[in-house]
Amino acid sequence: MSTDSGEISIDLLEAAAAAPYAPPPKPNWTSAHQVVAGFVGAETLGRDLDRVEESLRGAFDGASAMFADAMRAVAVPGKRLRPLLTLACGYARSGGGPVGERVIKAAAAVELLHLGSLVHDDVMDEAAVRHGVPSVNESWGNLTAVLVGDVLISESLDMAADLGTQQAKLLTGTLRTLCDGQARETASQYRIDRDEQAYLSSIAGKTARLIAASCRLGAIETGLSRQAADALESFGHHLGMAFQIVDDVLDLTATSEQLGKPAGNDIAQGVYALPVIHAIRHTPSLVDYLGRVPTERELDGALQLVRGGAGIALAGQLAERHTQSACQAVESCAGELDTAAGAMLRALAMGVLERRR
Amino acid sequence: MSTDSGEISIDLLEAAAAAPYAPPPKPNWTSAHQVVAGFVGAETLGRDLDRVEESLRGAFDGASAMFADAMRAVAVPGKRLRPLLTLACGYARSGGGPVGERVIKAAAAVELLHLGSLVHDDVMDEAAVRHGVPSVNESWGNLTAVLVGDVLISESLDMAADLGTQQAKLLTGTLRTLCDGQARETASQYRIDRDEQAYLSSIAGKTARLIAASCRLGAIETGLSRQAADALESFGHHLGMAFQIVDDVLDLTATSEQLGKPAGNDIAQGVYALPVIHAIRHTPSLVDYLGRVPTERELDGALQLVRGGAGIALAGQLAERHTQSACQAVESCAGELDTAAGAMLRALAMGVLERRR
Repeated sequence: MSTDSGEISIDLLEAAAAAPYAPPPKPNWTSAHQVVAGFVGAETLGRDLDRVEESLRGAFDGASAMFADAMRAVAVPGKRLRPLLTLACGYARSGGGPVGERVIKAAAAVELLHLGSLVHDDVMDEAAVRHGVPSVNESWGNLTAVLVGDVLISESLDMAADLGTQQAKLLTGTLRTLCDGQARETASQYRIDRDEQAYLSSIAGKTARLIAASCRLGAIETGLSRQAADALESFGHHLGMAFQIVDDVLDLTATSEQLGKPAGNDIAQGVYALPVIHAIRHTPSLVDYLGRVPTERELDGALQLVRGGAGIALAGQLAERHTQSACQAVESCAGELDTAAGAMLRALAMGVLERRR
Repeated sequence: MSTDSGEISIDLLEAAAAAPYAPPPKPNWTSAHQVVAGFVGAETLGRDLDRVEESLRGAFDGASAMFADAMRAVAVPGKRLRPLLTLACGYARSGGGPVGERVIKAAAAVELLHLGSLVHDDVMDEAAVRHGVPSVNESWGNLTAVLVGDVLISESLDMAADLGTQQAKLLTGTLRTLCDGQARETASQYRIDRDEQAYLSSIAGKTARLIAASCRLGAIETGLSRQAADALESFGHHLGMAFQIVDDVLDLTATSEQLGKPAGNDIAQGVYALPVIHAIRHTPSLVDYLGRVPTERELDGALQLVRGGAGIALAGQLAERHTQSACQAVESCAGELDTAAGAMLRALAMGVLERRR
């Protein structure tokens, strides 16, 4: 943008000023964001996400000096997938245009609950890294991590209570289910007798329930009927199930570079997803590598056996079925939705199957 | 109750059947329970506390199998001081007679929040013992302790949401304040420059706020006016401040036998209460023993210096002032209270000063 002499060309500046406003590229936007932006416009979505950030900042900023640093680390914007879904359902009725303050508050509340549970999960797992950076417990200790998680949870439920008792109870019930899902996962860690049902109950509680709640809140706060809210909650549940199944498959099939973490990490941690459960049943020699923390060679051997089995494809089919169920849920309340909004929600569900990392 | 021949005398059985029903002694009843029982009758109080236990059981029983044992350990009835205060304020209008279901639910909600925060505190402090038995984190690990705490918090806030958004927000705000109080305490651990203000802010957040909320909820749910609820919240705050100041003095002055834990435990843990803060200022040699985990000899030396100073008496005077403020708060809403109920609440506040362990 500069001339050879090193000076900025006035012509170029004038041309830039005359061009229609193009929002700067959003580094954290996923293809899901693009789908929603395609419906409501990148500018509206960007502004509404900024409003969510502002609402979140209010919750982060009140932190005691003692854990202000830890809170700042938690506050670094991630994908904000759950708020995106709350907004998407919030747009579904209005047919575009910015959403009301209540939808923004709902979006912030679900993200705070998500962040609080992540921080607590890392204490439980003694995880040293989260999204490529040191976890709160690793950097500041368990004490700070438990406190920060509690504060995030209290801020989330406080916002939900502002919306109403129904909304508050939706999130307390969700927190309860998150705990149950986490407990189920831990109970079956390194267990070679984990079955499909145990896996599905765990991800339903750990992942799908909060995504379902995110959608329900968006639907409620944009003024959709109770039936439509039920339908969009079901949409969120199935989208969440598909999302987690695909996520767990990617952990087995993607390269470490694609994942940004070691491939097969879940097997190393003793979390056996659908393809592993299937492979154990059909390739008994696999159990030689499982049931404990594997060596690098054992992990490679396990990954090869799992990748060679039919479980990967079966898991993909199950994810696809959940995606179809998500689309059907949208259909079931199509009468209340803007037509293009229905298509946007279905595209969000289908997009889950396209994830590569 | 048996004759010499070993047979039970029919006369005695008949006499027992004719006597008025006397509830069995309650092993966990404190003098505070006796004060409330003196007003409302031991039978009514006992039954209402049983109703609170039943309400708590509902929250405990839904626990996943994975942490059912840990939950059972948490569920063992303690003193239930906070529910007692909720009930006491709940009785204050009715002038006796059992309280309504909403007061019971409020009492259970505050106890669940208390228990949840205790379980999380023990993770943070890496405490191995709570009330003389191994802590949840010690017996079942941090993972279970974080989860159990989260479940208790979600159940508490779920009950509060059933009562209304105002009540839910009272408890989310209280949880937030509990975290801040705990953070303040930790930030000043082993710091010889901790001042009175830091100490008082910490115990206001850590202890007094939840007791104040317990009283406010009892007042609201029994139908007292907003002014009276404000007054009884203030009553709870001052009672809570006095309670914690006395508790911290006892840690310095009582024997290990009286306390059921090592005397001077707070100094050992680096938590310097009012008398220690005062002694540091007036007996500079004390700092030789502080600022780190002390040896047994250093702890003895520190205790002697603190006990010899004026700080113990000053702390006692401050507790007394808070007790007076608690009584004045009761006076300020006396018009709405049953006369005997006002006396009962004042007796509860005064009773804090009589604690010996």
